[in-house]
Amino acid sequence: MNLFDAASFIQSHQTFYLAAHQSPDGDTLGSCLALRAALLEMGKAATVVCPDRVPAYLGFLIGADTVIGTDGIEPPQEAVIYVDCADHKRTGALEAILETAPYAFCIDHHGTNPRQSKNGDWVENVSATGELILRLLEELDAPVTHGIAVALYTAIATDTGNFSYSNTTADAFSAAAKLMAHDINLPELNRVLFREIPLSKAKLIAYVLGNMVLSCGGRLNTVAVSEKTLRDCGATKEECEGLIDYLRDVDSVEAACVVRESDGVARVSMRSKRVCDVAAVAKRFGGGGHLRAAGCTLELPLDEALRTMREALTEALQ
Amino acid sequence: MNLFDAASFIQSHQTFYLAAHQSPDGDTLGSCLALRAALLEMGKAATVVCPDRVPAYLGFLIGADTVIGTDGIEPPQEAVIYVDCADHKRTGALEAILETAPYAFCIDHHGTNPRQSKNGDWVENVSATGELILRLLEELDAPVTHGIAVALYTAIATDTGNFSYSNTTADAFSAAAKLMAHDINLPELNRVLFREIPLSKAKLIAYVLGNMVLSCGGRLNTVAVSEKTLRDCGATKEECEGLIDYLRDVDSVEAACVVRESDGVARVSMRSKRVCDVAAVAKRFGGGGHLRAAGCTLELPLDEALRTMREALTEALQ
Repeated sequence: MNLFDAASFIQSHQTFYLAAHQSPDGDTLGSCLALRAALLEMGKAATVVCPDRVPAYLGFLIGADTVIGTDGIEPPQEAVIYVDCADHKRTGALEAILETAPYAFCIDHHGTNPRQSKNGDWVENVSATGELILRLLEELDAPVTHGIAVALYTAIATDTGNFSYSNTTADAFSAAAKLMAHDINLPELNRVLFREIPLSKAKLIAYVLGNMVLSCGGRLNTVAVSEKTLRDCGATKEECEGLIDYLRDVDSVEAACVVRESDGVARVSMRSKRVCDVAAVAKRFGGGGHLRAAGCTLELPLDEALRTMREALTEALQ
Repeated sequence: MNLFDAASFIQSHQTFYLAAHQSPDGDTLGSCLALRAALLEMGKAATVVCPDRVPAYLGFLIGADTVIGTDGIEPPQEAVIYVDCADHKRTGALEAILETAPYAFCIDHHGTNPRQSKNGDWVENVSATGELILRLLEELDAPVTHGIAVALYTAIATDTGNFSYSNTTADAFSAAAKLMAHDINLPELNRVLFREIPLSKAKLIAYVLGNMVLSCGGRLNTVAVSEKTLRDCGATKEECEGLIDYLRDVDSVEAACVVRESDGVARVSMRSKRVCDVAAVAKRFGGGGHLRAAGCTLELPLDEALRTMREALTEALQ
């Protein structure tokens, strides 16, 4: 299945559910809401459905307030398009209803997609599903309004980490160039997408930067975050995501490690830059991951877990 | 003067000094070093000159180790090209030597450029001088090697704040798209350009995030940084740049203010998001700036200066 199949699926139907995946991010919601706005402009009916709520920081997306969840959802009348869903199960609690749709198509960029949709799956290995939606709108000669451009820019910028992850291609930049023709307020959008954080997260960052311990001549950077620290900061465990990057960002550091207390066990995140194989370290403790990003869980009190990981990483750095 | 004049200036000469501006950044050095590498490929002689040293984080740029300063510099034999220099004075201590050049041209993107070069100035209001150099190399049919592409990408990415400042245009993204064809390691480059910080800076960030005070229902965020704090962190006053962004990034905040002790006076930086006119506040204290970014200097002890600014900003937020 390709772009033309997707365009013809849309041309053949009148009423759509556009399904975003659970724990929705900028790509699934930006893509769904851009496609919805374009379908409405084309005189069709479209509703974005998502098993989880729209995160507050994405509330500015066009039509974000129209997204519906499991509450009182009607069975699909006609067509469902799964958008940025690596498989149908990613629609979580909604799938039982969505699978009753007479027609179903999928538009996605995850190579692992099992291509299980009744009427086909357009899966391409691009930076973000938003790139595919832009191509689709061009193919359909659908209008790209300001709101649609902002939503697609959001999809691409968030899934590429503001054009910094390894999935960032020339095509991602070209798509952004096209979208910039629609008068996007980039400084404001960037602040909302990449910089704004709640006070609780700021406190957590202050904690890890203030309590991290450099060893191995500055090459290893470690910190422990207890449940008490989270409470003191008013932070959730979800807010611990990304903390490890602050440790790795110190210029002398080769390997970084955050050990977080969680219901009596210690959850370990590790990152490295150029040399250290943190996947091998994680494996020693029953975990896994990639060469430069890995994790494991230790059934130890927090301070013992920190000491254990520091020893293992010190060894790995030698 | 335009692209064709620049190309013809290069075609007419054989030996070049390429002049970078003082306090060199990614745009002036990336542009100079990319142009130098291309000129060498074309069989010409080119040397990059800069009154200040290449900052360590830009040491990876192609030929960065060949940049010369005022030490033992020979008078220019033939042509000088001022690159990204808003005027000739931006070459600082080098200008006395550079102005003796028989031929001089300028390539720049600062609208205020006085266009004072003997043989012309190509000034266009683009995101970065690197964009102009890319167009020039295309016009000259010069090879764009991997090293040249990385240098030009660095020029554009740094001058646009990784595609986030208001100067970021569709053309900036298009140029990046072209450069991405040259196998740029984006995750590594982004870490070096935008994320890596010395330990001293990490400590400073921990200090301001740990000691900032929210008031006005979370809309005002202020902190004072004493000379003792800088010493404790092992940080320089230059490293205080950008600290204010961390204060502004807290989601509830409308206005942020950092007051820094410096030789017996208090230097004040202010930022706002959507409402507060910080230029007006700065003006009350003999300072100035823009609507959303301004500063002033108070001849007061640090704590009194902080109190004064907090009062003034509280008033401005009402």
